[in-house]
Amino acid sequence: MASKLDASIESYIAQHQTRLLDELKQYLSIPSVSTLPVHKPDITRASEFVAGKLRDAGLREVRLISTKGHPLVYAEWLGAPGKPTVLCYGHYDVQPPDPLNEWITPPFDPTVRGENIYARGAADDKGQMYVHIKAAEALLALHGRLPVNVKFLIEGEEEIGGESIDHYVKDHADELACDVALVSDTHMFAPGLPTLCVGLRGLVYTELFATGARVDLHSGLYGGAAPNPLLGLSQIIAQLINADAKVQIPGFYEDVQPPSAEEMQSWTRLPFSEEQFLKEEVGASLLVGDARYSVLERLWARPTLEVHGITGGFQGEGAKTVIPARASAKISMRLVPKQDPEKILAAFKKEVARLTPPGLCVEVKVHSFGEPILMEPSHPYVAAAADALTEVFGKQTVFTRGGGSIPIVARMQQSLGVPVVLMGLGLPDDRLHSPNEKFHLPNFYNGIRAVARFWEKLSG
Amino acid sequence: MASKLDASIESYIAQHQTRLLDELKQYLSIPSVSTLPVHKPDITRASEFVAGKLRDAGLREVRLISTKGHPLVYAEWLGAPGKPTVLCYGHYDVQPPDPLNEWITPPFDPTVRGENIYARGAADDKGQMYVHIKAAEALLALHGRLPVNVKFLIEGEEEIGGESIDHYVKDHADELACDVALVSDTHMFAPGLPTLCVGLRGLVYTELFATGARVDLHSGLYGGAAPNPLLGLSQIIAQLINADAKVQIPGFYEDVQPPSAEEMQSWTRLPFSEEQFLKEEVGASLLVGDARYSVLERLWARPTLEVHGITGGFQGEGAKTVIPARASAKISMRLVPKQDPEKILAAFKKEVARLTPPGLCVEVKVHSFGEPILMEPSHPYVAAAADALTEVFGKQTVFTRGGGSIPIVARMQQSLGVPVVLMGLGLPDDRLHSPNEKFHLPNFYNGIRAVARFWEKLSG
Repeated sequence: MASKLDASIESYIAQHQTRLLDELKQYLSIPSVSTLPVHKPDITRASEFVAGKLRDAGLREVRLISTKGHPLVYAEWLGAPGKPTVLCYGHYDVQPPDPLNEWITPPFDPTVRGENIYARGAADDKGQMYVHIKAAEALLALHGRLPVNVKFLIEGEEEIGGESIDHYVKDHADELACDVALVSDTHMFAPGLPTLCVGLRGLVYTELFATGARVDLHSGLYGGAAPNPLLGLSQIIAQLINADAKVQIPGFYEDVQPPSAEEMQSWTRLPFSEEQFLKEEVGASLLVGDARYSVLERLWARPTLEVHGITGGFQGEGAKTVIPARASAKISMRLVPKQDPEKILAAFKKEVARLTPPGLCVEVKVHSFGEPILMEPSHPYVAAAADALTEVFGKQTVFTRGGGSIPIVARMQQSLGVPVVLMGLGLPDDRLHSPNEKFHLPNFYNGIRAVARFWEKLSG
Repeated sequence: MASKLDASIESYIAQHQTRLLDELKQYLSIPSVSTLPVHKPDITRASEFVAGKLRDAGLREVRLISTKGHPLVYAEWLGAPGKPTVLCYGHYDVQPPDPLNEWITPPFDPTVRGENIYARGAADDKGQMYVHIKAAEALLALHGRLPVNVKFLIEGEEEIGGESIDHYVKDHADELACDVALVSDTHMFAPGLPTLCVGLRGLVYTELFATGARVDLHSGLYGGAAPNPLLGLSQIIAQLINADAKVQIPGFYEDVQPPSAEEMQSWTRLPFSEEQFLKEEVGASLLVGDARYSVLERLWARPTLEVHGITGGFQGEGAKTVIPARASAKISMRLVPKQDPEKILAAFKKEVARLTPPGLCVEVKVHSFGEPILMEPSHPYVAAAADALTEVFGKQTVFTRGGGSIPIVARMQQSLGVPVVLMGLGLPDDRLHSPNEKFHLPNFYNGIRAVARFWEKLSG
């Protein structure tokens, strides 16, 4: 059921299709690699390009915000009093393009092959975030106004940790006040399948530093009496999680909130094969985890405990009969809604202390810390985004979650107190961070349609 | 009760004391560092020096034996038909002297300070093995004969694994046939306390290689379903040995033979303080291990299982949310008399296979493999050595064991089927392998007396 707005957006896109693609190519040709100092001028160019396009689109108060790192780009259009305010987030920085020799066409020479455009940053995130700007441009060009108030906050450090925007959002919550945030930096579950990611797991990432003797000791001379930190860490780890992948920390599962019936129902519609996942993605002999839950539930809605690295003793080839004086283990827990990272960390520390074998001293360092996130599919703004996607893609929108964390999403939810709509327009095979990254061009144009439709629906 | 032989040895030593020291200095000034190719000419010089001194002492059939590595030195005196044959072992190679700036006097400029001579190799093993040559020299000079038959086999690769001598002994058991082997390459338990080391633990050193997924995976996207090799190795290790340091491998302790009453009684006479050992040597908060056994029993007469290194996942600073595709753990077991390394390895492998969590593949590689060794203190040759030491040092000889392995000792015992007398003349603070290595000169001269006395006693 196409509305009047839809029809005009259609003609706008049809009329401007070539220019839109040319602009995207121009944007993608800027090698704004945030981690390499040599690309600092490109970072500046990319931020100015984005600011310029926001200005051209008709946004107001467009400005670059200096940070300790790369600049943020801010813009707003607040001409819809009484209507909701949407904060659009994206990032203009990209990953390094190495290895260069694996690219079919150069990473910063954007090239269309078939229905895709190939370039570093095509999907992550230049192509996707540009959709928001072009939706605003189209609506302002067609109607001289937007159906809702809109703020843009675009960063240039997403690929290097996003520290500046994290501080900025935390410190400028009033200025960024809004009703909902919009992020297009994820992907659709399958080609053509409109997807809203409504949940992200939280994370408590720790490192255990175990110390035994004063110095490394010879296992022949001291074995049988000297404490062994590697053995102690193994014993701690093995008692933190049992053979059935059940975390043994007291109270660990206490606050876990199972997904709603609506979400669970949505997952059954997903084209997901556990066998294919095992064979094509994991490549192990079998999948592990708590068999009472489906694989998708385990990945998205169940907390985990993982060991990411153990370091200690002799790591070269061959044999050395050393009892190391110290060893360390990186251990994280993925958390799901309603688990509280603070509470989990406290329980973890208490249990590690309880499990620490005599003779060893174990210190727990916290590397990172993130809340789990859930936007209820029934929330009116989430439902509006789902409806918009359904209309544009012609298929019922599915609700997924992500097993990982997106720190800026947690930050916006926490500091601004708003739901974050993760309207992913990428595809699973977009090769983010790898050679031959691409963006599916139909998703570029459909994205513009969907964002415009979303805003219209928010307007009520 | 000094015998006639003792008296003549005394006067020989008194008469030749300065020359003996000068010769030792000459020997110690050769930088025969076996691991550094630049010292190859010094290795040659050291081997020729030893051969020359054996010839000068009156030994026969003196020759250098070429190997793939550094030459062996062989000599013999077989003029005592009907008497036992002693095989004297030692090594002329030394450890590198680094760090050079920590030496008070240069490592290859042997210097006497107080009662000690300081140089690299002073105690390990040039000073100690030279004692055997000088004992032969003295007796041959005094009497024109030795009380027993003697063979010398001296190597130049002890500090780099001793591969050549291992092959040689294995392949030339007939040529090296003897009744007892004599090694002076260990130390006395305390200054002035004559010590025979009668036992050495065996070793099975393995490495477990665990594989899960095909490639490293992101713990956000795969955590909860992908197998984690680091977690699996921790679980295996924690089940191989329990919190009370008891190894859980079925049958592990089955063949353990407790020390004899005589040995145990000897250990109670040792000046050993568990508290001092903890504070000064280990430096941990407490000693661990099976509390039903004393610390010396745990170090010398009880088998252990240790983890020497775990490698896998992210080992840099900070956090990376990786589920590693593979990880490895170096695990060894120290074995005591009557444990059979083959049998233990088989039980270990079986248990590792049983404990391997689903989804992981674990391969066991064997790095090294050595039999435990025990010379019964009541064995007549061992008793003869103990009596000789007691007479020379004026204190009752104590029987100790070593928690580590000395591969050549195992090789001689195994291939030649003889007991190995470990007549250590070093002291605990000789700083082997460290700057300012020293040898206590009274032990040099007493060693000559003790070896001569030992041979005389063997003669019956």
